[in-house]
Amino acid sequence: MTKSMPNDFPSDVVAPPVDDELASALATLGLSFSVDAAQRAEHGRDWWPLSIPLTERGEVRAWPGAVVRARSSHDVAATLALARKLQRSVTVQGGRSSVVGGATAAEGGLALDLTAMHRVLAIDEVAGTVRVEAGCRGPELEAALSSRGLTIGHFPQSFDLASVGGWLACRGAGQYSNRYGKIEDIVRGLRVILADGSDVELGAHGPRQALGPDLVQLFVGSEGTLGVITEATLVARRRPPYERRAAYAFASFTEGLEACRRILQRDAHPAVLRLYDAIESRRSFDDERCVVIVLDEGESLFVDATMAIVEAECQSATSLDEGLVARWLEHRNDVGALAPLWQGGLVVDTIEVAGPWSTLAALSDAVLSSLRALPEMLVASVHQSHAYLDGACLYFTFAGRPAGDVENFYRGAWDAASRVVVAQGAALSHHHGVGRNRARFMRDALGTAHPMLVALKQMLDPQNLLNPGVLGVGGDPW
Amino acid sequence: MTKSMPNDFPSDVVAPPVDDELASALATLGLSFSVDAAQRAEHGRDWWPLSIPLTERGEVRAWPGAVVRARSSHDVAATLALARKLQRSVTVQGGRSSVVGGATAAEGGLALDLTAMHRVLAIDEVAGTVRVEAGCRGPELEAALSSRGLTIGHFPQSFDLASVGGWLACRGAGQYSNRYGKIEDIVRGLRVILADGSDVELGAHGPRQALGPDLVQLFVGSEGTLGVITEATLVARRRPPYERRAAYAFASFTEGLEACRRILQRDAHPAVLRLYDAIESRRSFDDERCVVIVLDEGESLFVDATMAIVEAECQSATSLDEGLVARWLEHRNDVGALAPLWQGGLVVDTIEVAGPWSTLAALSDAVLSSLRALPEMLVASVHQSHAYLDGACLYFTFAGRPAGDVENFYRGAWDAASRVVVAQGAALSHHHGVGRNRARFMRDALGTAHPMLVALKQMLDPQNLLNPGVLGVGGDPW
Repeated sequence: MTKSMPNDFPSDVVAPPVDDELASALATLGLSFSVDAAQRAEHGRDWWPLSIPLTERGEVRAWPGAVVRARSSHDVAATLALARKLQRSVTVQGGRSSVVGGATAAEGGLALDLTAMHRVLAIDEVAGTVRVEAGCRGPELEAALSSRGLTIGHFPQSFDLASVGGWLACRGAGQYSNRYGKIEDIVRGLRVILADGSDVELGAHGPRQALGPDLVQLFVGSEGTLGVITEATLVARRRPPYERRAAYAFASFTEGLEACRRILQRDAHPAVLRLYDAIESRRSFDDERCVVIVLDEGESLFVDATMAIVEAECQSATSLDEGLVARWLEHRNDVGALAPLWQGGLVVDTIEVAGPWSTLAALSDAVLSSLRALPEMLVASVHQSHAYLDGACLYFTFAGRPAGDVENFYRGAWDAASRVVVAQGAALSHHHGVGRNRARFMRDALGTAHPMLVALKQMLDPQNLLNPGVLGVGGDPW
Repeated sequence: MTKSMPNDFPSDVVAPPVDDELASALATLGLSFSVDAAQRAEHGRDWWPLSIPLTERGEVRAWPGAVVRARSSHDVAATLALARKLQRSVTVQGGRSSVVGGATAAEGGLALDLTAMHRVLAIDEVAGTVRVEAGCRGPELEAALSSRGLTIGHFPQSFDLASVGGWLACRGAGQYSNRYGKIEDIVRGLRVILADGSDVELGAHGPRQALGPDLVQLFVGSEGTLGVITEATLVARRRPPYERRAAYAFASFTEGLEACRRILQRDAHPAVLRLYDAIESRRSFDDERCVVIVLDEGESLFVDATMAIVEAECQSATSLDEGLVARWLEHRNDVGALAPLWQGGLVVDTIEVAGPWSTLAALSDAVLSSLRALPEMLVASVHQSHAYLDGACLYFTFAGRPAGDVENFYRGAWDAASRVVVAQGAALSHHHGVGRNRARFMRDALGTAHPMLVALKQMLDPQNLLNPGVLGVGGDPW
């Protein structure tokens, strides 16, 4: 069900005039680029839902001056050299599946598209690692690995859209991350082009090293603001020989959370362990209780052990037909679901956060209350989507039908939920990242650590060329 | 068998004259400190074996001007303010169990001892996390957790000596790390006092966040050169209810490595999976083959599954009496073993590196050959001590009896082995860190990433006050 963007621009979309200085410099360098209005419009947006109404009206919040299609790390370095010379910003883009505006270009800047850099460069079957260009998307990477009996195991909802560089830049999580890890666990090495043109190789010396701080982690989550990731080395595992599924219903969300906690703390980490509140259980599974779906894959001995622990810890729940897991699997990558709702006048979005088990139920209640208290809010619901030893990700969905300004309502909902999360000391984002949408909360969320992020930006991008405004550094998000 | 240092200074050790400006400034601030000769001598060394012959002769390579005993983060900040004002260096110290000179003070500088900061501040039994001061040692921390049924599971050989801050500063690994992770996997948050006096709280918002780069990882492995870690939040797990052991003998080290690889790549990660070459197997287990010892603990379902996979993958080996594991357990923390050998005229040390499975056997052979080719080298041997999906740690031991200068021989051995590791693109250190001993290899080991480490040092410690020379930044290691 690949869908490159939620909706289409009107055919008569009008762009600002072409920046001739920029176009001529790009041509001189022999870079592949476009200054076409439709191209610039497309690369001026990503999957941030706020783009849906804008697109419908033919509006782009910030028009890139040109779209550059890099074919190599050399092209990336050349683009950055040009950006330094002409003082134009650079927004690196892969599949532009960011749902928080992290891949939307800045006004007059360069949209640096890496999707032409999609080669799988090397597979080490013995070590189980793969070196890949940043623009490669999940299906192509998995196909290359599959023929060697390997998999990354990273399956985000945006699997068909997102690129490896985007996974890394946003600290992404796949739907099977309880077993395979988040992308920060999967990465071993990076090639990064810095704003000053340096071509830097980080990590990839082996599984672990104690040679100073892990500089790879400086760029995982940097959202294009500190450098351009052009290649990555990832761990690839043997494809799982065995799979099992189960489903349960709990009387309450809190009871379900407790069961998830006990499962993880008994060292079981089924690839999928998702708990839905009553609203989402009714919507997705036609059940009035709180549904848990479970899927594990891998060595049969471990999968069977995992499922035995899951069963033991779900004793107080009702066992359901495992066919519910198949129902989830069928719909799990339906990324296009939001656009028709917006087009119907609803304002809908999701907010994923993370917190420790000890305060998770209270966090869930407080965020839901804050959303439900807003005028014109129709519904707010939650599920637990990724679980760890010490806590989990809560994934909220809200929908409202504002009579007035759509963007005001949207920002109000994010403000309300985010204020609660920051006040509780929980993590403002688990895997979608900051982008432009969460930029205004970063100072409060990072607290005393915020100046360090600003200093890193100053150190690595002193001219503020890279994705300015994203991540709450380098200017106004919009 | 706690032993605070390998050997004792002569009772008549003579220190350089007291720095009155420094002493008077420390007194004015109300800090707890000493300028006593014996204290300064002690804090001028750590467990780096090169200190053994120096100590015997009553020599200290670099005398700290004073030893400050911080009682709080406030004391740390006050010490750093003084250091800025008087332009004196600061070397943060815990148990000083660094075996690479990472905790040896710089000439005339302040040795900042954190061992008085050893409080366990808070235990969250539900989330399974503990907040602890950086000077707390393993036994005290584990005792506090044990009464709540929890454990960190971090058991380095230096367990009785090392402090939490040292674990983190050096990217340490415990002997059970295959199951519990290295310290970078265990940490969730840090409190750090920066050179400019900033008091910074990093992480600890929950299990995972996608809010920019993981700034916690900037200080894990920073070896006291980028800031002073004063508190940490770590994950604590339920104490394991079940344990199993096994031992096998392989005909060759390579065959044993292959079995370890297959075990890990079938998702089994027994807490202990150590493979010894024939030399070490004879020395430790009276066996002429290559011995593997295995220990796992945790949920019985997972431990039994793990041991079944281990057994299946060790089919070509001879099963041995599991009593060999007990023999290893008894001696595993004998940190004082090296001193008597050095005092008997031998030069002995260990070198831990890491590499991918695909080149590990070749790496092992090449490092051993480089050591054995040195004149006056008596023996070089290896074991595999920590294993991952994609590779493992190789732990080499060498011993020689040089007729000439001991230090020349020692440095020659490290040069030879390190050159091979760097040339093969493997990781120069797995868990001991860089300290002063490996500082001279850092430029080559990090390659194009080295300038970034230098820039980080400049950003966080522009006056070069923090542990100068360690980690290959901020000056000559000695």
